[in-house]
Amino acid sequence: MNRSEVIKACRRVKEASRRLALTDEGTKNRALAAMAKALVRNVPYLLKENARDIAYAKRKGLSKALIDRLTLSSPRIKAMAASLTAIAKLKDPVGETLETFRRPNGLIIKKVRVPIGVILIIYESRPNVTSDCIGLCLKSGNAVILRGGSEAVHSNTAIYDIMNSAALRHGISRDSFLMITDTDRSVVNALLEQEGLIDLVMPRGGESLIRQVAKRSRIPVIKHYKGVCHTYVDEHADLKMAEKICFNAKVQRPGVCNAMETMLVHRNIAKKFLPAMISRLRDAGVRIRGCRITKSIVRDVIPATEKDWYTEYLDLILSVRVVGSIDEAIRHIMKYGSYHSDAIVTKNRKNAAKFLKDVDSACVYVNASTRFTDGGEFGKGAEIGISTDKIHARGPMGLEELTSYKYVIYGKGQVRK
Amino acid sequence: MNRSEVIKACRRVKEASRRLALTDEGTKNRALAAMAKALVRNVPYLLKENARDIAYAKRKGLSKALIDRLTLSSPRIKAMAASLTAIAKLKDPVGETLETFRRPNGLIIKKVRVPIGVILIIYESRPNVTSDCIGLCLKSGNAVILRGGSEAVHSNTAIYDIMNSAALRHGISRDSFLMITDTDRSVVNALLEQEGLIDLVMPRGGESLIRQVAKRSRIPVIKHYKGVCHTYVDEHADLKMAEKICFNAKVQRPGVCNAMETMLVHRNIAKKFLPAMISRLRDAGVRIRGCRITKSIVRDVIPATEKDWYTEYLDLILSVRVVGSIDEAIRHIMKYGSYHSDAIVTKNRKNAAKFLKDVDSACVYVNASTRFTDGGEFGKGAEIGISTDKIHARGPMGLEELTSYKYVIYGKGQVRK
Repeated sequence: MNRSEVIKACRRVKEASRRLALTDEGTKNRALAAMAKALVRNVPYLLKENARDIAYAKRKGLSKALIDRLTLSSPRIKAMAASLTAIAKLKDPVGETLETFRRPNGLIIKKVRVPIGVILIIYESRPNVTSDCIGLCLKSGNAVILRGGSEAVHSNTAIYDIMNSAALRHGISRDSFLMITDTDRSVVNALLEQEGLIDLVMPRGGESLIRQVAKRSRIPVIKHYKGVCHTYVDEHADLKMAEKICFNAKVQRPGVCNAMETMLVHRNIAKKFLPAMISRLRDAGVRIRGCRITKSIVRDVIPATEKDWYTEYLDLILSVRVVGSIDEAIRHIMKYGSYHSDAIVTKNRKNAAKFLKDVDSACVYVNASTRFTDGGEFGKGAEIGISTDKIHARGPMGLEELTSYKYVIYGKGQVRK
Repeated sequence: MNRSEVIKACRRVKEASRRLALTDEGTKNRALAAMAKALVRNVPYLLKENARDIAYAKRKGLSKALIDRLTLSSPRIKAMAASLTAIAKLKDPVGETLETFRRPNGLIIKKVRVPIGVILIIYESRPNVTSDCIGLCLKSGNAVILRGGSEAVHSNTAIYDIMNSAALRHGISRDSFLMITDTDRSVVNALLEQEGLIDLVMPRGGESLIRQVAKRSRIPVIKHYKGVCHTYVDEHADLKMAEKICFNAKVQRPGVCNAMETMLVHRNIAKKFLPAMISRLRDAGVRIRGCRITKSIVRDVIPATEKDWYTEYLDLILSVRVVGSIDEAIRHIMKYGSYHSDAIVTKNRKNAAKFLKDVDSACVYVNASTRFTDGGEFGKGAEIGISTDKIHARGPMGLEELTSYKYVIYGKGQVRK
């Protein structure tokens, strides 16, 4: 695709986005149901196309973890379909009145939710992102341009073709969804210059991908950076509860952004808390990197380096630091953290309130696992990502976060004085 | 300022922003009151510094309009102070709970307003922008970096120094506000790379300034582009009302972004409406550029070119087009408009509803002047600008639009299954 082909394609998507923005909820839901059915009906075809990607990945010697993320199976395809069915059941955010106010001059001003327009999603590996993004964008009335990784091109194209045809039968224009299969970098760069045709870019993937997109883009970007999440075990913590929460935050699913990477423990309870906690974590395969005091309390702890405090391991590795006060814990989180999800375990109300106020992360918890930072767990039904930005949307992003608003003003001939 | 000096300065502002985010409303209001008083007390000094800028502008041969915008006077300084007093009276948005929901597992999730952090404002000429931005950012708990134009550097620095000293006496750190007086382009470019230290950029000025900032910035930008605003006079309009609204939208203050630039008139009422309307506009000094049909109805109309339909005149000039239907009017607005503010005048409910739904502008009006698109008129008390973006904030931006949010989650030991 050269630059002028990119622009032409984006124009068609922009046009389609205007029709999609005005499409009623029933039509959108019928299209979603048809898409879900079509995916399940086409399991053999999807597996065949997916096998081509996997064969390529193996030839290229890509990592086992990456190949696992890339692999489709009948249950995984059914889960993709189920996700579309769930999206169909969510409330349509478009048209919702957010606020109504009457001005002294009699003007009635309503703030009404509208779709954003055209959303560009740049992502890697997981083919289920394709179906999730099409589903969430359709329901929120947004057209979407998908640019997946070259490693998943056959799987993504197959999913896209099946969903697009199903939607077309329900009157949703083909141009409402565009898949870019040309993975040349120049195509992405051309897309990132279309600030009049694309309204929002969401890069989902590694930090370097996100940084490149943010650097290049003239279109607003919502970033999904890493999660260096902390749990601070306060001196007033219920230690049994703290153990349960920390174990869950680290071990239940270590490869995700809301898992704990650093545990901070108050000095006054460190000797009582750490030995049992670390022993339990080690039994689950967790390797510990600790500060000097941690090392003095528990044997065989690898010393944590300055770099460790900044690291998102996404693995069964945990940094542990003993702190002298809640203030020291907060300072550590503000310095080394990524403002994603951080928790305090405490029975002390004042300390809980202080932590919740002073820690400026997207999600701050008292007495719960950071693993709850998730669109589904928040009751949003589905999520398109977890924003680490402070502009537009923060934390888990569901349908509502895929909308903008406009002001609708009802007058009776008012003019400005 | 070299790059490392810029980074050092931004670090200090980021640090200060954390303290400012936690500052209580009373302290902020006392600082605002002190700032207002200090401006009034320093009128002679401000006028003296302003005179230096004006002398320079005259030597440089800058336009009369620009010199007028640059000029301070005792009433203008008092108006700046009054604006700060008004901001002090507005409700503090920080800490407001936007939503509370209880999950089936007992978690209580609150969505709470927080300041954005550090806001960079790049602007031109008007010195009152300096005091307005400092006031609005202070009240919303945001630190601010101001980079005004070289033509206003003495006025801006004087305003900044006075306000900063007044705030300091009330415990607001000096680093909460930073004025960049080095107007070398390299300094702006260095600022636009500090995505870890600056959270939002708002360029206020000409379109080329905004485009350059959007192109360069790695930090989220909220753009304030031009307003090519339309009024569509429907075939079912109350023509007296239409005349009053169109006259106000064009003439009351033509040099602002919410003034009407194009009037669209339904064919069926064009002959009845246009002669009197255009005659009244001409009496007020408005020059008309019309389509072929307009020219056939009214004498001496200059033919409008394709370029006219795209143009924000900011002057006593109006493009007029006769359309065959409401659909044609909407298509014109979507093609040539800037999605700022557009109005329909009609007594027909169906047409009103269609226009309000189909026109995707920040503000859509029925039977009122587009001139109402303004933070003050919307009841926001004050505005930092009018966003033409769809991300984060759209239309007039007041204190609430200068905030982000975080999720505060209260648990009793819940862990994820």
